[in-house]
Amino acid sequence: MAKNDKKMVDAITSMDEDFAQWYTDICKKAELIAYTSIKGCMVIRPYGYAIWENIQRILDGMFKETGHENVNMPMFIPESLLQKEKDHVEGFAPEVAWVTHGGHDRLEEKLCVRPTSETLFCEHYANIVHSYRDLPKLYNQWVSVVRWEKTTRPFLRSREFLWQEGHTIHATAQEAIEETERMLNVYTRFCEESLAMPVVQGKKTESDKFAGAVSTYAIEALMHDGKALQAGTSHYFGDGFAKAFEIEYTDRDNKRVHPHQTSWGVTTRLIGAIIMTHGDDNGLVLPPAVAPIQAVIVPVAMHKDGVLDKANELKERLKNAGVRVKLDDTDNSPGWKFAEYEMKGVPVRVEIGPKDIEANQCVVVTRHNREKTFVSLDELETVIAQKLQEVHDGMFQKALENRENKTYQCTSIEEINKALEEKGDGFIEAMWCGEEACEDEVKAQTGAGSRCIPFAQKNLSDKCVCCGKPAQHMVLWGKAY
Amino acid sequence: MAKNDKKMVDAITSMDEDFAQWYTDICKKAELIAYTSIKGCMVIRPYGYAIWENIQRILDGMFKETGHENVNMPMFIPESLLQKEKDHVEGFAPEVAWVTHGGHDRLEEKLCVRPTSETLFCEHYANIVHSYRDLPKLYNQWVSVVRWEKTTRPFLRSREFLWQEGHTIHATAQEAIEETERMLNVYTRFCEESLAMPVVQGKKTESDKFAGAVSTYAIEALMHDGKALQAGTSHYFGDGFAKAFEIEYTDRDNKRVHPHQTSWGVTTRLIGAIIMTHGDDNGLVLPPAVAPIQAVIVPVAMHKDGVLDKANELKERLKNAGVRVKLDDTDNSPGWKFAEYEMKGVPVRVEIGPKDIEANQCVVVTRHNREKTFVSLDELETVIAQKLQEVHDGMFQKALENRENKTYQCTSIEEINKALEEKGDGFIEAMWCGEEACEDEVKAQTGAGSRCIPFAQKNLSDKCVCCGKPAQHMVLWGKAY
Repeated sequence: MAKNDKKMVDAITSMDEDFAQWYTDICKKAELIAYTSIKGCMVIRPYGYAIWENIQRILDGMFKETGHENVNMPMFIPESLLQKEKDHVEGFAPEVAWVTHGGHDRLEEKLCVRPTSETLFCEHYANIVHSYRDLPKLYNQWVSVVRWEKTTRPFLRSREFLWQEGHTIHATAQEAIEETERMLNVYTRFCEESLAMPVVQGKKTESDKFAGAVSTYAIEALMHDGKALQAGTSHYFGDGFAKAFEIEYTDRDNKRVHPHQTSWGVTTRLIGAIIMTHGDDNGLVLPPAVAPIQAVIVPVAMHKDGVLDKANELKERLKNAGVRVKLDDTDNSPGWKFAEYEMKGVPVRVEIGPKDIEANQCVVVTRHNREKTFVSLDELETVIAQKLQEVHDGMFQKALENRENKTYQCTSIEEINKALEEKGDGFIEAMWCGEEACEDEVKAQTGAGSRCIPFAQKNLSDKCVCCGKPAQHMVLWGKAY
Repeated sequence: MAKNDKKMVDAITSMDEDFAQWYTDICKKAELIAYTSIKGCMVIRPYGYAIWENIQRILDGMFKETGHENVNMPMFIPESLLQKEKDHVEGFAPEVAWVTHGGHDRLEEKLCVRPTSETLFCEHYANIVHSYRDLPKLYNQWVSVVRWEKTTRPFLRSREFLWQEGHTIHATAQEAIEETERMLNVYTRFCEESLAMPVVQGKKTESDKFAGAVSTYAIEALMHDGKALQAGTSHYFGDGFAKAFEIEYTDRDNKRVHPHQTSWGVTTRLIGAIIMTHGDDNGLVLPPAVAPIQAVIVPVAMHKDGVLDKANELKERLKNAGVRVKLDDTDNSPGWKFAEYEMKGVPVRVEIGPKDIEANQCVVVTRHNREKTFVSLDELETVIAQKLQEVHDGMFQKALENRENKTYQCTSIEEINKALEEKGDGFIEAMWCGEEACEDEVKAQTGAGSRCIPFAQKNLSDKCVCCGKPAQHMVLWGKAY
């Protein structure tokens, strides 16, 4: 048994030894993905897809609560449609996949596989928006998109990935800006309350905003290795797309005016964020809200009289209490099962054997801290519900502490380099004059790019960390995935 | 008010006048779809997509109950992978969209956008199936696929459509055949219990089976106009794909053998089937199980004291009773609203005005038969639940009667032509010798192709309807969508 445990644990690289390899090992050993013969495209396996289904279910509920409706747009965009908004096409054209033939025939106009769908939504809005009475339209779709990346990694950067893209259109700039902020708040709440992952809200700098946007807001998370990960974005477009696509409506004063638009999205990248925020050397650690299995029951001395019956009884009780529960009654050893479900990041393990039954108890082990508790069977449902909440809170706290320990306030480029060298990668808080040249210079000299201008500003000094001229903002800097 | 009603009703073509135009009118006026600049690709609008979400939710639950798991495969298939199974590539290659460029670079190998994903699942199974312990794998995915059709119609035949594709792999032929039948039964139950649409189960003839299958089972429905629609298919592959893709496993006797496979799917075409099975000259008629709005509350004399409050109270009560309910409190006239929600096929309308409130009642109108009932407000929840059941049953019965009235038993080609001419398009039940030449001849002479060999066989005669030689099966024939 101990041998099996060992074998399982040995199966993945230690995160301190090689974080990138550790990440890939988890993706494979926890059966989240499999590679395919199509470079940069992967299979999302049942266990990985079940996490995505939970993410979808929760987020889709939040979208609908805030008045959004789902639609489905074509996956293809004609070249001429993609080209209508100048900045947008410049940003995306270099990385799209082109369909040139249908069956045996060359197409009259080539079509790209959507890298994002602003152009399609705009074409549709131009057809259906005529009057102020038609506004707002609050649409979203759950689809996959394609970006022809050169280097790829499971979940973090793949040529095809799953996402949702919200596209909304409003009568006024004010309403559109509010929507942009509302959805950033929805993402924040989702990351913190469902993924146990603290995030920093902020605005992207000019050089880093979405192709065609007036402003891009983002949430940034810090991974276990001190690298930053953009977890979600929300864009305000003003009326730029509306002008390019000739979307007009008649307002209350009977004037023809352009509406204002937004878009916002999160992707399967969030699964990568979960792995790198919470995982450890024993494997995945899943937040209870999105875990496909929240509690696994492992019977000990399974073939002894009454053990399997009792295990089944506990399973039914937990299922009835609304817990996503699995009983593993296969012939693998308990030790093998412990290692397997640790690898898969199941938040709570329930062990039940002959001695436990005699004592009317079971053993409950929480994944994130391996804490062991003896629980009276009379209190099973209550305690498991408490434990799941404790796991969530503990995971969030641990991730927050990691971020706090790895957030450095610096007033010079030397301080940034010193902090990164001595304390390792992390978030840098430092002032910035607003000039792109300084932004580039900081990145060139430290490797840390601007992640965002946090909404929660601090005044660390009056001077730009790079040029020493008057500072405009505190920027969050970091090396990024 | 009457004028508005009229306008609304006039807005669609009568089904008897021009069924195809009536169909297109409903797709547009009920706001199910919108056209795009991409030929053969459409926008599925919120109301249409909400029907699909209900279909997905119910079917996905049925798949999971029968042990299936969802996965996600890439949308691209390399040309060499598509070519591995000979019949399969012959069937699909003429109608696929080809990606030849990524960004500015020509791809080394062109990729097709999946028309179906057998090849991808096979490649994956070859990687993950090693032992009998790995079997069965019962996978499904909800995605869109692309087939480069020449002529297209919303939902019925489009270049991109949404579907689910189940792909399973089993240790034995027996298990795979059972799976093929199980899923055909799931589809049948879904069509009859959730879409109120009776279907005929049967086997496709050799000439009509899926490219690469040993046998294809299908469910066939009869539309209002007497044309047949294939509503779902389930294929048994034997070990043909396994051999082509070199999928092998070690069985219990330690021998290396090939597993057996199935695939099965339904598409957004089901929405087309709903329209053409149940719709009428006032618009869509939706089965309660998949209707985005099951009951709409229309306040009459809305601005009179207490009407809107009462309407809101009824809405809350129905919502709490689990009914998908909408209160339309816009300034449009009640007459306009009646026509609007008839167009959208809402199963039950609840009218409430000052006189009703005084009498502690409301008026309930069922969409499919326009029957009007006065209902005591004390019994609202109970009666609405009953009405929804009645609507379902009534719709099913009506569709069944349509099918029965339009199913003709014939023993000669002359009889077939006579029946089709005198009674209009419909299902023909007629005997067949099993020769493809006769199948082709019947179609050439009558326009009715073989739809399937029904599981429920009848012995109408001993002779083939075409050649007069001994009959092997009763075949269901019809003109098809």
